[in-house]
Amino acid sequence: MPELRQNMATREWVIIATERARRPEEFAEVSRVRTHTRPQRVEKCPFCPGNEHMTPAATLAIEDGEGWGVRVFNNLYSALGDGPVSERVMEGLHRHMSGVGRHEVVVESPRHNTTTALMSVQEVARFLRAFQVRTEEASRDERVLLTICFKNHGAAAGASLEHPHGQILCLPVVPLQLRSRAHDAMTYFDEHGSCVFCDMWRQEIADGVRVVVEGKHSVSFVPFAAFSPFHIWIVPKRHAALFVQTRPDELEDIASVLRTTLAKLYWGLGDPDYNWMIRAAPNHHGTSRSYHWYLSVVPRVSKMAGFELGAGMFINSALPEQSARFLREVQVPDVVPST
Amino acid sequence: MPELRQNMATREWVIIATERARRPEEFAEVSRVRTHTRPQRVEKCPFCPGNEHMTPAATLAIEDGEGWGVRVFNNLYSALGDGPVSERVMEGLHRHMSGVGRHEVVVESPRHNTTTALMSVQEVARFLRAFQVRTEEASRDERVLLTICFKNHGAAAGASLEHPHGQILCLPVVPLQLRSRAHDAMTYFDEHGSCVFCDMWRQEIADGVRVVVEGKHSVSFVPFAAFSPFHIWIVPKRHAALFVQTRPDELEDIASVLRTTLAKLYWGLGDPDYNWMIRAAPNHHGTSRSYHWYLSVVPRVSKMAGFELGAGMFINSALPEQSARFLREVQVPDVVPST
Repeated sequence: MPELRQNMATREWVIIATERARRPEEFAEVSRVRTHTRPQRVEKCPFCPGNEHMTPAATLAIEDGEGWGVRVFNNLYSALGDGPVSERVMEGLHRHMSGVGRHEVVVESPRHNTTTALMSVQEVARFLRAFQVRTEEASRDERVLLTICFKNHGAAAGASLEHPHGQILCLPVVPLQLRSRAHDAMTYFDEHGSCVFCDMWRQEIADGVRVVVEGKHSVSFVPFAAFSPFHIWIVPKRHAALFVQTRPDELEDIASVLRTTLAKLYWGLGDPDYNWMIRAAPNHHGTSRSYHWYLSVVPRVSKMAGFELGAGMFINSALPEQSARFLREVQVPDVVPST
Repeated sequence: MPELRQNMATREWVIIATERARRPEEFAEVSRVRTHTRPQRVEKCPFCPGNEHMTPAATLAIEDGEGWGVRVFNNLYSALGDGPVSERVMEGLHRHMSGVGRHEVVVESPRHNTTTALMSVQEVARFLRAFQVRTEEASRDERVLLTICFKNHGAAAGASLEHPHGQILCLPVVPLQLRSRAHDAMTYFDEHGSCVFCDMWRQEIADGVRVVVEGKHSVSFVPFAAFSPFHIWIVPKRHAALFVQTRPDELEDIASVLRTTLAKLYWGLGDPDYNWMIRAAPNHHGTSRSYHWYLSVVPRVSKMAGFELGAGMFINSALPEQSARFLREVQVPDVVPST
């Protein structure tokens, strides 16, 4: 019998279709392991060192001894434009406003043939710090209500360039989904006097069966109501509504948990395409005691079809406990094979 | 400058990224036109006539003179199981219930090499009627709170079999997204004394610029805040919360509008993969004066990436008015070329 599960933080139901579940091994395509087999530098790649003239000037560069280690700049194909704070305009039933905001690219490494799974913890912490610095800068921009830090890895995840990079999009609106989640988190706080995300990571560690990697300051787990196979949350243990409120020592721990988690996907499933997204509160909810930032990882191993689009609800063909056990057992090599 | 638009029925914001917009022609891959070039019957296709033994017994068959014209049966790989009404169980922070419900397949035609775009209006009305009959039957099942009728056309839309078919999934829960939409529609009714969807189709017809096809009882248009290129809504003009409340004459009109709309996608964009979904109220909101059923068509010509997953909000790289004008101008042949 399939099971329906509800994520108490997002209030979303998911169908765990155990009857047509695939075993974790069936998602693996180890032959696909590919990132580390690429050349270290690609002549025409706009994100490789030496090609900086192909992109806008850096808004942040973190040095690495011989050059930049991380480089941030405005997206050439920005989804949002520059300009004054926009008014919302109503014309009949149509509400609109100008698309002002920020859209930056974070090149995570000078090396074309690396990815988070293959980096050192210090390299990962460094690019996460770049996301934090730029998010902090954006929070002083009165036009920005919410910043989304995210990464697309591989074509199925929407990446158009191979070189490891993420993006920062700073919005002048709060999306409906976040309004709904913030409201439900407040309702939970009202009922229990605690943050639902704080309660959730504690329960996940107590249960143990869905944990992937536990660090001192953060933990990664497959949520009880994961919406797709190997869907993972990385939650900082200390309550913080905003990503920028996380301290350097906590960030280094998160970098380590993220790196090991993604390495388990890389070596266990064969470098699958994935997205990660930081889900933080809107800036003006920065002191919220009920909303808690976390990082969500979504390997793109299943497709969104009509049911998901029509119900806003997912069918997961993998049992979260099985996905987590599989990942816990994946051995991550210390040294990446050079090619 | 990009623009942000809000859909007043769903309250969802979308970024219309005009700066990186593609022209409608750029989405077209006319060389891909494919469905009508397939054989009329495929030996191993479980949905072709003569292979009925490969699927469960019919729950509904509509005759066509020489055999069935539409055939409905339980999905062999059902996402939901049979069984008694399930209780919701709380264990710590985890709410779950057994996955009871219904999951049926609607084979829309005996012909393997057809699709809605190539059918007669009568054929389309016949399979829509089958969806209606089975949805009506499901509404008498006390376990079912909401029925989702949907179609996956092509691999990118999640279809695993070519033969034209849709699915019916009957849920024992109301998804969060629908709860939120129903609430917002009630708020609108409270403020205006009218249904936001009724007001919307009237404004779309008055504006004209986003209309694709107008029928006597229904209209298809690209919503003002369409979330992806060529995203289309087909809205019945008479207020009805549930799909099953639509009368036969109205259904025939909707069949005609759906067929012409999909034919414009088929001939204009080269048989793109798409989903359609019927978005109706939960059964127990059947008398709602604020929620209104409609059919949403989503051609899968763009990818969901980290931003969309992290914000629950979309970037549309096509201007809705341009998409609609392009589709209005597509000529639909009366007779499908035989191959």
